[in-house]
Amino acid sequence: MAGHLRVLGIDPGLTRCGVGIVDVASNRSASLVYVGVVRSAADAPIERRLATIAAGIRTAIAEHRPDVVAVERVFSQQNRSTVMGTAQASGIALLIAAESDLPAATHTPTEVKAAVTGYGGADKLQVQTMVARILRLDTLPQPADAADALALALCHAWRSGPRATTANGALTPAQRAWADAERLTRR
Amino acid sequence: MAGHLRVLGIDPGLTRCGVGIVDVASNRSASLVYVGVVRSAADAPIERRLATIAAGIRTAIAEHRPDVVAVERVFSQQNRSTVMGTAQASGIALLIAAESDLPAATHTPTEVKAAVTGYGGADKLQVQTMVARILRLDTLPQPADAADALALALCHAWRSGPRATTANGALTPAQRAWADAERLTRR
Repeated sequence: MAGHLRVLGIDPGLTRCGVGIVDVASNRSASLVYVGVVRSAADAPIERRLATIAAGIRTAIAEHRPDVVAVERVFSQQNRSTVMGTAQASGIALLIAAESDLPAATHTPTEVKAAVTGYGGADKLQVQTMVARILRLDTLPQPADAADALALALCHAWRSGPRATTANGALTPAQRAWADAERLTRR
Repeated sequence: MAGHLRVLGIDPGLTRCGVGIVDVASNRSASLVYVGVVRSAADAPIERRLATIAAGIRTAIAEHRPDVVAVERVFSQQNRSTVMGTAQASGIALLIAAESDLPAATHTPTEVKAAVTGYGGADKLQVQTMVARILRLDTLPQPADAADALALALCHAWRSGPRATTANGALTPAQRAWADAERLTRR
């Protein structure tokens, strides 16, 4: 869409890599373009798993032509057994962005949760609920990795884009809808 | 060389990524094909740094056509600030192996040190010294990342290849030279 920023959000992972694309207008309103999860078999060799993830991300870029790629930042403090695979998948996502001549950015899970729910410690259901409301989806995006990828894309657009208001400084209709949705989630 | 296994060893890193290629015969004798370090600027965006590393690895593969790629395994327990970047670089190396239709393997630092020095806790100088002796180099491979990449390639060939002996079970000349070199290093 003209006047919109198209953001590809990637929630990196080897078993499930969330891929979400949204169009975000300068007034912060957003619409869903694509959401999916790239999966790789846990019993496949690591290099094959990474190639599967890479192919899925390249396909999403080729089909939907995002303007920018946002990837969740991985921390070594997350001492899960999967953290190295997650870091490797995030490296693949960033590499593909660079090789596709797209700008890339990383955001922390806390930044992403705060951006879509107003609370950095929000749980997965809150994130899914807010993403569905913001994008006016009839059902919650499933699985959580898919919702997280969309949340990441929204976070990036909102943190980097202009925060438009109406001439008198009041909220635009889209901003009001977003604020309403936020309020509803904080039950 | 015919009858040799050509191994590309990669010591992953963002600031310095060691790249070493050796030819290893079935009698374990080895010779240097290539050694180098791919560097990326610490102040460049992460996606550009990964693309620089990827380009360097792809060039080494295109020019030297290895049979297999060996990458150092990264652990989250290595709680250095660089561990996530190292993991990302290792993911890039494994991805490029898969996309080059080459088999890939990972080895731990302990396995690598034990393979070339006989001691899993060997220090960097010991590894450099043994790599130089095994490959009959006049000087120590520099920097340590380059030596580590060569050690990784040797480790992979020796762990996966046949351990040939002469018909009467004695050491071949190359094995004897290697055993001598080992003994000299354990001063």
